[in-house]
Amino acid sequence: MNVVDLIRKKRDGGTLTDDEIASLVAGAATNSIPEYQLSAWLMAVFWRGLNAEELHCLTTRMRDSGGVLTLHGLPAPKVDKHSTGGVGDKTSFLVAPIAAAAGLYVPMISGRALGHTGGTLDKLESIPGFKTQLQEEEIIAVLSACGLSIVGQTEWLVPADRTLYSLRDRSGTVESPFLICASIMSKKLAAGLDALVLDVKTGSGAFLKHEAEAIHLAELMVTTGNSAGTRTAALITDMNQPLGRASGNAAEIVESVEVLRNERHPLTEDLRQLSLQLAGWMLYLGGKVPNPEDGAQLAEDLLISGLPLTKFRCMIAAQGGDLAWFESPQQLHQPVYQYHVKSPSAGFLSVVDCEQIGWAVQRSGAGRTRPGEAVSAHAGVETHKKIGDPVGAGDTLFTVHVEEEWRLEPVAGILRQCFMLSAEPPSPLPLIYKVIA
Amino acid sequence: MNVVDLIRKKRDGGTLTDDEIASLVAGAATNSIPEYQLSAWLMAVFWRGLNAEELHCLTTRMRDSGGVLTLHGLPAPKVDKHSTGGVGDKTSFLVAPIAAAAGLYVPMISGRALGHTGGTLDKLESIPGFKTQLQEEEIIAVLSACGLSIVGQTEWLVPADRTLYSLRDRSGTVESPFLICASIMSKKLAAGLDALVLDVKTGSGAFLKHEAEAIHLAELMVTTGNSAGTRTAALITDMNQPLGRASGNAAEIVESVEVLRNERHPLTEDLRQLSLQLAGWMLYLGGKVPNPEDGAQLAEDLLISGLPLTKFRCMIAAQGGDLAWFESPQQLHQPVYQYHVKSPSAGFLSVVDCEQIGWAVQRSGAGRTRPGEAVSAHAGVETHKKIGDPVGAGDTLFTVHVEEEWRLEPVAGILRQCFMLSAEPPSPLPLIYKVIA
Repeated sequence: MNVVDLIRKKRDGGTLTDDEIASLVAGAATNSIPEYQLSAWLMAVFWRGLNAEELHCLTTRMRDSGGVLTLHGLPAPKVDKHSTGGVGDKTSFLVAPIAAAAGLYVPMISGRALGHTGGTLDKLESIPGFKTQLQEEEIIAVLSACGLSIVGQTEWLVPADRTLYSLRDRSGTVESPFLICASIMSKKLAAGLDALVLDVKTGSGAFLKHEAEAIHLAELMVTTGNSAGTRTAALITDMNQPLGRASGNAAEIVESVEVLRNERHPLTEDLRQLSLQLAGWMLYLGGKVPNPEDGAQLAEDLLISGLPLTKFRCMIAAQGGDLAWFESPQQLHQPVYQYHVKSPSAGFLSVVDCEQIGWAVQRSGAGRTRPGEAVSAHAGVETHKKIGDPVGAGDTLFTVHVEEEWRLEPVAGILRQCFMLSAEPPSPLPLIYKVIA
Repeated sequence: MNVVDLIRKKRDGGTLTDDEIASLVAGAATNSIPEYQLSAWLMAVFWRGLNAEELHCLTTRMRDSGGVLTLHGLPAPKVDKHSTGGVGDKTSFLVAPIAAAAGLYVPMISGRALGHTGGTLDKLESIPGFKTQLQEEEIIAVLSACGLSIVGQTEWLVPADRTLYSLRDRSGTVESPFLICASIMSKKLAAGLDALVLDVKTGSGAFLKHEAEAIHLAELMVTTGNSAGTRTAALITDMNQPLGRASGNAAEIVESVEVLRNERHPLTEDLRQLSLQLAGWMLYLGGKVPNPEDGAQLAEDLLISGLPLTKFRCMIAAQGGDLAWFESPQQLHQPVYQYHVKSPSAGFLSVVDCEQIGWAVQRSGAGRTRPGEAVSAHAGVETHKKIGDPVGAGDTLFTVHVEEEWRLEPVAGILRQCFMLSAEPPSPLPLIYKVIA
């Protein structure tokens, strides 16, 4: 098949056949198509888009470009939750244990900090000894023992995405919803899931700032997931402010364990509520309850029972993590230097620039400026007010935690610029804007 | 300058600055920008286009990416004619000698056969000994002596175009009028021209089949040429049938010399007329006459005087070509095998698929299937009827000339499928559709 003809066909708005897409994906997986042709094709897709059939073909051909996780032996449905990335988003550490507590299996292949958003693997690696790179047999063993396993992408899963993902970054073709959908869904489908709940973030801290963009991506992913045989739903959720209280690595684990221990706190209620809704959808799509509302109720009952905490402990131990800190979780978070960003005046917190808070977290040392860089386990930003909260002059809005003192001032500088107060309370933000199922 | 940002800017419909374009062109010329980024950028330009200012910057930055011909020493204006490519198009061999006969200089940098279209250099190289690769000093010497020199592209002219041209072919971004304009005009401007006449072909044998596309390209090139300081005009001309009688290599030289010798033939009148019009515009833009109509008249007077024939002989001798055949030109064309494609019925020739005739010429051995391949000097297709001519059953429509007998049948097979007869004569085709100046 002539690659130039396939580029020209898409460039001119044509529809590629499954065979044509298969040949492009195989060429990407084996590096037999030169990058200059793949990048021209990616730009043509950026321009022309893909119809539902093409997107199905691209996603499933990518899924099948390498090995897949073979989890048929596990005696219950496999479910997962995936987020498009946010600030302070630690719902994975709640929803995976809750679904496991309900008797489902959660093989969660997660990522690292990217740009201004946090990375699930980086957060877990703040637990001493915790391993995120597991062989397939090890993943199955952890799943069998605990019901959940949160691990990193492996070499043999979806090699076509490794080529295309890296090339998109270098060729200015990252933001296409079609390419984002194929990249996310090919990896999720390669994990052999029966059901998948997507948490598509929208707002100032999300990659997709506008709700319409988030809905479009969600619709593509839901259609593609369902057409590939995985029951898929998406929640469009708010990312106009960090979720919960902590944004960083160890601090997010600590906060998650507090919620798993049923220690309630006004600043973590949004995290708890969103996690129960997402888990409710996982339980519903996993066949445990007749509707998502019953799912959310079961999720809360399970959380209160304490079983999810046991499941989470089980996974940490099974993946080599230390448990000594578990009885007093705050021990895990040991920042060296702290700085409080205070409000210069009184009012109601009306707006925060959540992406800037994300960049502040990254500059504190919790994120990366280039791939492969080490991150600080103990750096991050603690949020003391939610949008709508009354603020007094001199009240602390954010606390910066760092391990290197020189980082305090630049991070504080960002945070001083990223909020607005108003005389009247702003209208409240919904937690969930829309459900696509 | 971050290349990904420049790709994204064009992708999102933004306007690139001169500095930004300069950095892309320099990266292409020195191969310091990876091809996968250039190809993504080319596709973004294909999609979003370029405004007049961007196109000016791209073209002039490409022009200046290497050396330029320094012809300031020649004591009269430098003029050229460039065609977008056709079948049987040998006007260069008429207009260059006519302009030289008028006292202008014609430094004509030409190309080779491409796809279904013929190549000026391939045609000239059918003259034994004729050299098309000359050093700058040699070009200037031939121009000084004869007033014209037709040569190939040299390594040091427009290196950015060499990179981008090759990449366009491999990345499915050839047909963008903006990229075509920059490629053609950067090379023409590097020859240091005072004036340039563009012959933009339209019709079944042209690269641009539709008149509107041809006009768009012509407008871009005329605007860009004039903004760069070269007086530029374009004629939109018919390529719905081969120009003149012969399509091949030596046979086209023979036919051109016949016209230069004022041997008139009904089948070469279109070639003669178009050449006089194009030459008329060269003489006008070169400052020899007050308007193009006077230019065409002067061109005809010069042609009849025989001086252009002398100029053409002069160039052939100066570039090492044999002149022994010149007194009986037909000697130059020595095909070994011939085949006549005859009309199965009577009527008027109403349509020919001129691109298919071009492919027949290529398959006869006169063209190439890959770059660098040798071509046959004596292969080609001779046309015996023009659109509108009456045809009797059994009349010869085409004669195939080849040097290898096995090529006869496939070429004849193409030609048998590429014409239609009608009961009534079709409405006549204009030779020139529009002038853009």
